[in-house]
Amino acid sequence: MSQQATGSIPIEVRFADLDAYGHVNNAVYFTYLETARTRLFIDRFLALKGRGLLLLVARAECDYQNPIALNDRVIADVEIERVGRSSFDLAYTLHDGEGKTYATARTVMVCFDTGLGRTVEVPGELVKREG
Amino acid sequence: MSQQATGSIPIEVRFADLDAYGHVNNAVYFTYLETARTRLFIDRFLALKGRGLLLLVARAECDYQNPIALNDRVIADVEIERVGRSSFDLAYTLHDGEGKTYATARTVMVCFDTGLGRTVEVPGELVKREG
Amino acid sequence: MSQQATGSIPIEVRFADLDAYGHVNNAVYFTYLETARTRLFIDRFLALKGRGLLLLVARAECDYQNPIALNDRVIADVEIERVGRSSFDLAYTLHDGEGKTYATARTVMVCFDTGLGRTVEVPGELVKREG
Amino acid sequence: MSQQATGSIPIEVRFADLDAYGHVNNAVYFTYLETARTRLFIDRFLALKGRGLLLLVARAECDYQNPIALNDRVIADVEIERVGRSSFDLAYTLHDGEGKTYATARTVMVCFDTGLGRTVEVPGELVKREG
Repeated sequence: MSQQATGSIPIEVRFADLDAYGHVNNAVYFTYLETARTRLFIDRFLALKGRGLLLLVARAECDYQNPIALNDRVIADVEIERVGRSSFDLAYTLHDGEGKTYATARTVMVCFDTGLGRTVEVPGELVKREG
Repeated sequence: MSQQATGSIPIEVRFADLDAYGHVNNAVYFTYLETARTRLFIDRFLALKGRGLLLLVARAECDYQNPIALNDRVIADVEIERVGRSSFDLAYTLHDGEGKTYATARTVMVCFDTGLGRTVEVPGELVKREG
Repeated sequence: MSQQATGSIPIEVRFADLDAYGHVNNAVYFTYLETARTRLFIDRFLALKGRGLLLLVARAECDYQNPIALNDRVIADVEIERVGRSSFDLAYTLHDGEGKTYATARTVMVCFDTGLGRTVEVPGELVKREG
Repeated sequence: MSQQATGSIPIEVRFADLDAYGHVNNAVYFTYLETARTRLFIDRFLALKGRGLLLLVARAECDYQNPIALNDRVIADVEIERVGRSSFDLAYTLHDGEGKTYATARTVMVCFDTGLGRTVEVPGELVKREG
């Protein structure tokens, strides 16, 4: 599987990410996942978009383990975990780089063809299927 | 199980909820879930907060079925699905009120005692355990 | 000046709008302004967008007078205050409908032609110039 | 005036910052300003908060000059421009570090004493008054 498809992305916590509880809001964790995968895939995203292909989230899930405060260091590890014909899974770990995990998460991604108006097979140049 | 714990909450789509793809961003769906449960539980949230209890999301998951556009009507149905000793599940359906489902979702909620610094048993007045 | 161009729009406060201070975040006030003008102008927005015209904010300003809490009722009054050749001003008041003002604000709007790649004269059907 | 009170803060553009027009949403510029001043003042913010003092925005304004795209480099220059008895002004420039200005902005900041329930004189250790 393509090594370039995995990576560690530093995430900048903003004051606006905190909610009234004083920690990063639960929905913002999904923004962090998106920020990480966008950074990681950006060149391929743009190439696909030029061909009318959008990379959409079909399913997202997150297990919250530790709250994130304003000054916390946050790193998002992203890894391709499964590549199917019409979808692939990204697995994420949000952590502080020193052994503390904030959350583990997963998104199922699909490729949507804006011309055809439906999801299509995942292009081989985006993620490589095994075997 | 308490009937008052379920409900249908209209959600107002904002222009800012849309992302560059022109539809409501995937992370914003979780904000919609939060908005719905906050409306539904607001009195109990505030009563709990006065006693130092925060209602936190331990896990969140969402299956995306249809994109939401700016002018779409969005209703969030919320239902308590499981009540355990230390957590309970909320099940959500985001729909248009006319048979179209945007997403189904679930959050596992826990009660955190800010005084004790740890999660505690779910208070009976928040959700009623069966049997 | 066109009467249809002014209006009062109810705004739904979301838990996610609050920041760590427990009140609606200062940047979110601008989202409220946008939500209000989008509602008000939606038909004309879409008609313009179909012709490749985007309505952009050239300047925004807000005077904060009172904090907004989760359960506060918020109404956005919007009014066209000035119509020039290449821009027009919208004036806003965020209030509770009972005499309490949260903020007064103003945005200078311009029309951007995506085909020409530059701002153009404000179309007469969007806002009517006087005299 | 204190040199430490000014600075240049790199801002990370997130996919979620973009709106349906494909550029950073106008309200998000104010989040960028907040992110920059929070970074710059963080130690003093926390020291003040420990004493029950909140730093609030009394007024905010922004002149938009160029759109910001996902891959654009964004730097926020922050400078204290005026220090009065009960408020002070921060001036900002959002730019790309190579001569292109995205926006210039200003916020009027006040100090709110949560114990007294009102704004108070700006503490000398936050910003130094001249003369």
